[in-house]
Amino acid sequence: MKQFSFTSTQTGIAAGARMGTIVTPHGIINTPAFVPVGTQATVKSLTPDELSTLGVQLFFVNTYHTYLRPGLSVIGSFGGLHAFMGWNGPIITDSGGFQVFSLARPKYKPADRDEESAALVKITEDGVWFRSHWDGSKHFFSPESSMEYQWTLGSDIHIAFDECTPYPATPAYARKAMDRTHRWAERSLIAHTKLWQSHKKEGKPYQALYGVVQGSVYEDLRIESAEKISGMDVDGIAIGGVSVGESKEEMKNVLQWVTPHLPHDKPRHLLGVGEIDDIFVLVEHGMDTFDCVQPTRLARMGKLYVPPNKVHTGTRDGYMIDITGKEYACDTSPVQAGCGCFTCTHFSRAYIHHLFRVRELLSYRLASIHNIHFVTELVSSIRESLGKGTFLEMKQQWLYNNHTY
Amino acid sequence: MKQFSFTSTQTGIAAGARMGTIVTPHGIINTPAFVPVGTQATVKSLTPDELSTLGVQLFFVNTYHTYLRPGLSVIGSFGGLHAFMGWNGPIITDSGGFQVFSLARPKYKPADRDEESAALVKITEDGVWFRSHWDGSKHFFSPESSMEYQWTLGSDIHIAFDECTPYPATPAYARKAMDRTHRWAERSLIAHTKLWQSHKKEGKPYQALYGVVQGSVYEDLRIESAEKISGMDVDGIAIGGVSVGESKEEMKNVLQWVTPHLPHDKPRHLLGVGEIDDIFVLVEHGMDTFDCVQPTRLARMGKLYVPPNKVHTGTRDGYMIDITGKEYACDTSPVQAGCGCFTCTHFSRAYIHHLFRVRELLSYRLASIHNIHFVTELVSSIRESLGKGTFLEMKQQWLYNNHTY
Repeated sequence: MKQFSFTSTQTGIAAGARMGTIVTPHGIINTPAFVPVGTQATVKSLTPDELSTLGVQLFFVNTYHTYLRPGLSVIGSFGGLHAFMGWNGPIITDSGGFQVFSLARPKYKPADRDEESAALVKITEDGVWFRSHWDGSKHFFSPESSMEYQWTLGSDIHIAFDECTPYPATPAYARKAMDRTHRWAERSLIAHTKLWQSHKKEGKPYQALYGVVQGSVYEDLRIESAEKISGMDVDGIAIGGVSVGESKEEMKNVLQWVTPHLPHDKPRHLLGVGEIDDIFVLVEHGMDTFDCVQPTRLARMGKLYVPPNKVHTGTRDGYMIDITGKEYACDTSPVQAGCGCFTCTHFSRAYIHHLFRVRELLSYRLASIHNIHFVTELVSSIRESLGKGTFLEMKQQWLYNNHTY
Repeated sequence: MKQFSFTSTQTGIAAGARMGTIVTPHGIINTPAFVPVGTQATVKSLTPDELSTLGVQLFFVNTYHTYLRPGLSVIGSFGGLHAFMGWNGPIITDSGGFQVFSLARPKYKPADRDEESAALVKITEDGVWFRSHWDGSKHFFSPESSMEYQWTLGSDIHIAFDECTPYPATPAYARKAMDRTHRWAERSLIAHTKLWQSHKKEGKPYQALYGVVQGSVYEDLRIESAEKISGMDVDGIAIGGVSVGESKEEMKNVLQWVTPHLPHDKPRHLLGVGEIDDIFVLVEHGMDTFDCVQPTRLARMGKLYVPPNKVHTGTRDGYMIDITGKEYACDTSPVQAGCGCFTCTHFSRAYIHHLFRVRELLSYRLASIHNIHFVTELVSSIRESLGKGTFLEMKQQWLYNNHTY
């Protein structure tokens, strides 16, 4: 039996906002939910028990990275990522596709060149050849191998193998990549179903599969892709290729085009998006889960989240302070007044400022704890506001001075 | 009233081993005790609550480093290190002397050159001029300023300002440095007493002062220094200049010369020593507390402590494994079988190996937790063995194949 299910309630918000529950073999996820990224089978500087304490419900791990190191034979010998990392909650893995392309392709160049031209990556209909960013060794990922790898990783949610269209892309290239992504989705599903049959015989739990909607920034392609993936027998829908764009307006457009064409009874994951202001928009447009490295990456740079009424400037910087700034050197107050996180209840801005200034390891950890707490609390409040029918007011309060949305 | 006291029991072991209790305004220390080093007001990668859980009783902080960054005005505005770091237990600070000399002087060159010759350091009878290792700015430390700084840091135990004799040193230079250290100890005590009077008026608790025994590797000088410092009205005795030597035999010699000349009723701190095999020797020779960066420094290199019967080779390497070695890539067992630390009860050798190989921040933390746990547990067992009269058997078991001692 498939231990994977999703129930949801529409909130009545026109754009499609909803609340739901995803049930996996390793526990439930109350949606909308923020998903921190543990690229190399670790959310940098934090332990799994800290993530649980922070209210993290789902842990994102990159297939590309763990395939290269420690390698799937190592993780396989533990029976999967759960035992290897010591995290017993739900895990979602990606297909490896995004990293294969993004770690090899030069960024922000139109991807209308011939497939052969990329120095490190060679795309064929069968799959993708690429070189390890560690040692230059050659590797091949296909829909079939990606499915096999993710079953070995044992994540609760897998992503179909896709070609993440670079940004910007010409309409012609975007269509080519999208069509291939659709063919690869079909092959992913076939491989996935076979792997599930063999795992089922061994008494192992089900691992869900999400198809990926691509189509770059083109409305016709995005709608076509949404309809195509929605028509497949997958467990959920992932929206890809959004985080690679540079404009928040474009992300909003994509969600506006796609959401009306998605089924209500399947969970949706937005890949790689989650700045503070984005969260309100993606929730409004019916996304259920979303992963993002920003909260932890910003933390390691000393950028710490605070509510917008503190320092709001009308930009994305309005949600954070730079704790490395001189003005915090003697500041005995916590990062965020009233915040209940471990960092804010134990340490001052001055101490964290000091740790960053002298490049101490503890700085990254204390900052990551605060930023993850901030986002999980925010999303928890958003869930509450959806239940109470006050989401749009809350959005207004948080984005009041932000003209992007 | 001085909230500082020491009681101890001789164990009957000829070399002078003893058990005791140091009472400070921030709690008691059961001795012998290992003291981890938090150079920059943080034990790298760990929080104060983790240190408490690990059984740490006393926290060592460097005056030189905290004086330069964040600066004493910042720490002073918190009322001292306890509030600044969020550590409510006892703290010991050094005088700053060791760092002033060691961070400026070329290592392992005979220090018989003229005082003026050191590029960054200028020693005068009054004190020492030096340049910051951060920005090259000029600073001056004297016995009086070191005392003032330590009272501002608010540590429970201060160390008198001394000249840490470089190793090796000629007998002539060693005497010169020792005589100056004795004059500086007298000045430290006078300054300390004045500062205590003014703090007492403000209702602040007492902060203890330890004098420092120097004298390099020369028996006559070490005995003279032990007698001189023992004759002073200080609260405890620190033994300096031992860690800078290269031979464990020399450390043992120094302790054999010094211990018989120290008072029984004052606690003794050995500065900068604490490899696993050293611990048995320094305890045997009546040391009560000892600080050492080795457990945490080795941890960050992937060198993890294990009992000697596992991999003992008769060298200092016999107490550790190098977790970065290929042989641990698939090892599902914990670092140390039966170890109760957080790292060993949650993670495998393979996972920690992976974290080190991909240079993840969590590696340093998990390794530091294990190594500090290992040492605090070892020293706790040593205390127990002293109580039961089985210390020498325990020492024999741990050092059985080690011909150094």
